[in-house]
Amino acid sequence: MKEKYFEDFSVGEKIHTNEKTLSTEEIIEFAELYDPQPFHIDENAAAESPYGGIIASGFHTIGTSFRLFIDTGVIGTTGMGSPGMDSIRWLKPVRPGETLRVEAEVIETRASRSEPGRGIVLMEFRTFNQENELVLSMRSVNLVRRRDSGNF
Amino acid sequence: MKEKYFEDFSVGEKIHTNEKTLSTEEIIEFAELYDPQPFHIDENAAAESPYGGIIASGFHTIGTSFRLFIDTGVIGTTGMGSPGMDSIRWLKPVRPGETLRVEAEVIETRASRSEPGRGIVLMEFRTFNQENELVLSMRSVNLVRRRDSGNF
Repeated sequence: MKEKYFEDFSVGEKIHTNEKTLSTEEIIEFAELYDPQPFHIDENAAAESPYGGIIASGFHTIGTSFRLFIDTGVIGTTGMGSPGMDSIRWLKPVRPGETLRVEAEVIETRASRSEPGRGIVLMEFRTFNQENELVLSMRSVNLVRRRDSGNF
Repeated sequence: MKEKYFEDFSVGEKIHTNEKTLSTEEIIEFAELYDPQPFHIDENAAAESPYGGIIASGFHTIGTSFRLFIDTGVIGTTGMGSPGMDSIRWLKPVRPGETLRVEAEVIETRASRSEPGRGIVLMEFRTFNQENELVLSMRSVNLVRRRDSGNF
């Protein structure tokens, strides 16, 4: 996808990512570092948990979703970071072998009052599995360079 | 720290974690997988960015904070996952060599209407650097097993 400056984002526009399949190994490797709860890292404990088997850490689902978004290239050199996110909802467990894709919808755009070189793009991320079930939604505030802002 | 069931959490209580120092290698390794923006993975591009050098992905800061919380053992086998998080604010960049610690305050506890074996513990996570500056805050909804709920 062509890189966009702040001025290029329109409310209602949807950005569609590629897909990513999460393996058992990736799920366990992530969770051992960042979320070592039994139902993320231990097959036996997970089998006896309410989830009935290993599920991906919600932080892994978020990271995977954001990686898919970055891989679109839409804010390749125009992205300037983020002050925050809101309304993260893990709606369904993500299990090994599931394939995720993201739809990122532009909800609002506004100029920055304090920094004339950038604008704020509010996006709703929706992550779906291979059955087109919504597994994650979240609102992400993105700082994006303006076209006329000179070098980054 | 001793493991807690739902009934053991009190509003206003604060849980303090150990510390974790993030190395350049860890920051780049995480970001290459989950947030490959130039100011997280490329020393030269980062030096020319508004951040003036590499900073940790905000998702890495969140994951590190949650790992520190899990390492307290407070929900070792009583944690039952989470439906979501709110109000994530990345308040200051986290740079290589910085040392993070977390204070997790119990904001609200309530029984689950649909699942009598669990309760909901709403926590505010605050992550500080070695200068005691607040770098991240977020609200996390945690499902926690009740003491009288039988086996997990």
